[in-house]
Amino acid sequence: MPSTRVVALAGGVGGAKLADGLAQVLQPDRLTVIVNTGDDFVHLGLKISPDLDTVCYTLAGLENPGTGWGLEGDTWNVLSRLKQMGLPDWFQIGDTDLATHITRTARLAEGWTLSQVTQDLCKTWGISVEVLPMSDNIIQTQVYTNEGVLEFQEYFVHRRCQPRVTGFQFTGAENSKPAPGILESIEAADVVVFCPSNPWVSIDPILSIPEIRGAIKDHPVLAVSPLIGNRAIKGPAAKMFSELGIKPSAYAVARHYSDLINCIIIDNEDAELVQSINALGIQAFVTDILMCDRADRARLAGEVINYYFKMEQGI
Amino acid sequence: MPSTRVVALAGGVGGAKLADGLAQVLQPDRLTVIVNTGDDFVHLGLKISPDLDTVCYTLAGLENPGTGWGLEGDTWNVLSRLKQMGLPDWFQIGDTDLATHITRTARLAEGWTLSQVTQDLCKTWGISVEVLPMSDNIIQTQVYTNEGVLEFQEYFVHRRCQPRVTGFQFTGAENSKPAPGILESIEAADVVVFCPSNPWVSIDPILSIPEIRGAIKDHPVLAVSPLIGNRAIKGPAAKMFSELGIKPSAYAVARHYSDLINCIIIDNEDAELVQSINALGIQAFVTDILMCDRADRARLAGEVINYYFKMEQGI
Repeated sequence: MPSTRVVALAGGVGGAKLADGLAQVLQPDRLTVIVNTGDDFVHLGLKISPDLDTVCYTLAGLENPGTGWGLEGDTWNVLSRLKQMGLPDWFQIGDTDLATHITRTARLAEGWTLSQVTQDLCKTWGISVEVLPMSDNIIQTQVYTNEGVLEFQEYFVHRRCQPRVTGFQFTGAENSKPAPGILESIEAADVVVFCPSNPWVSIDPILSIPEIRGAIKDHPVLAVSPLIGNRAIKGPAAKMFSELGIKPSAYAVARHYSDLINCIIIDNEDAELVQSINALGIQAFVTDILMCDRADRARLAGEVINYYFKMEQGI
Repeated sequence: MPSTRVVALAGGVGGAKLADGLAQVLQPDRLTVIVNTGDDFVHLGLKISPDLDTVCYTLAGLENPGTGWGLEGDTWNVLSRLKQMGLPDWFQIGDTDLATHITRTARLAEGWTLSQVTQDLCKTWGISVEVLPMSDNIIQTQVYTNEGVLEFQEYFVHRRCQPRVTGFQFTGAENSKPAPGILESIEAADVVVFCPSNPWVSIDPILSIPEIRGAIKDHPVLAVSPLIGNRAIKGPAAKMFSELGIKPSAYAVARHYSDLINCIIIDNEDAELVQSINALGIQAFVTDILMCDRADRARLAGEVINYYFKMEQGI
């Protein structure tokens, strides 16, 4: 097991948890986490990479477990002042979190790439696994809704996912290159894991980069469902499936990924979906996929590796 | 007295104190403060206007009296984190102060001018007198030294004024316009006051804008000396005079400004300089020019207005 090489694709909270689980069970040099940057935006003049921060804070054990985003025990001196000064406060930034955004913004202004900034931040935070942004190019997730086209954070945070979704676009993806190291890490990987992140706005943006999709197509891919029953564990994934006219379920997730994945891990609650998933030509393994604490993450990560072996053996 | 219209030119701490004194003794619509922006710089991706902030914080009664810069009772959560993350911490930014820089940076990025940002900040802080940056264009004070040409903050804060000064340049000044309202306020002014700021790097940058210098040339101008004896009350003014081969004194200040000022207010300690200043064709009034508290500021401001009347009457 320790020699399995894994590339994990991750978005925010759910992806970060499984990435942490994989980091707990694998040797550091055996894991590369590729993180969605379609949510990245400029806010108050700061370059903010919400998913990179969530993944890194979680890998470093610094995350706020109450919210999933931000840092545990952070203070709010600057944001409360900005609010008094009439600036938008819908995007919550604690003081320590702000230091991350200032650092990233300053380094990018100096000419660093996002990959270089991420590597430097990981070093600061003592993260030993490889964390790569999906690209050093700017790719923006646009959410098409009944209220027009919205930037992702505008939809997700400011509008609290209330507009009805009609589609998505990942602006810039077609002409973007994977960040350095991504193609090599996929090439060397035994298995690519789609973490339990939102298929539409966390995993699809990564897959929208042609060379990443192309590299993954030739590899064994295992997904962990972000849905249990008809509910997302966190976030708007289930709502998005519904609004797009698809009944939300682990089956819908498997079907969404059907041209790429060999296997999906679903929750015990969804055991009755195994046959219909198999009918898509996809293996399905059933276990407890809810990650309530760090031990859950390691357990699920261990099962992911085990299921990979079973998948390879066609069990 | 209350009907006197004053335009005050100010840099940092000393200028801010007299500006506050003038604001205490004049009706709000009778005072315009024109502030040096040659010190402005981009640091950690933030657009920082140190003199505008010092003047505004002082006018708002928010300044840290211990340092002269920054805000009283500010916290340091973000800076201490930035330091941990390997970013430069030589320029001190408290959390509340940081909110000012973020606001300015964000507004400028949205297309606001520095004047508009300043007006908005003044409104937030309850400042009722008019505060104008010297220009909405970028003018950079360059300090020529025995260690090469240094950006002003690099010289002033990072290098603690240690390099020996050989000259100054205000890059961009020749082609810059005064901020909106400046020429009109000078036109309407009864008297222009050069606050007790550094002549070389606080007042000269303002005067380096051709239209400001031109407008002031036709007006009664009264300066308050930033030097007492051969010492600056704060900052490197005396050191700069010495390094440029000029004996630092209120006389040297009067001579420096001799083509523009009609009158200078000097300290009791320097009473023996009156005759040599008069020999320059400049009137000199003697009083206590040290401003230790808010009452001192109002008293000195009142004397400035009184001396203006005496100057007009040729007393």
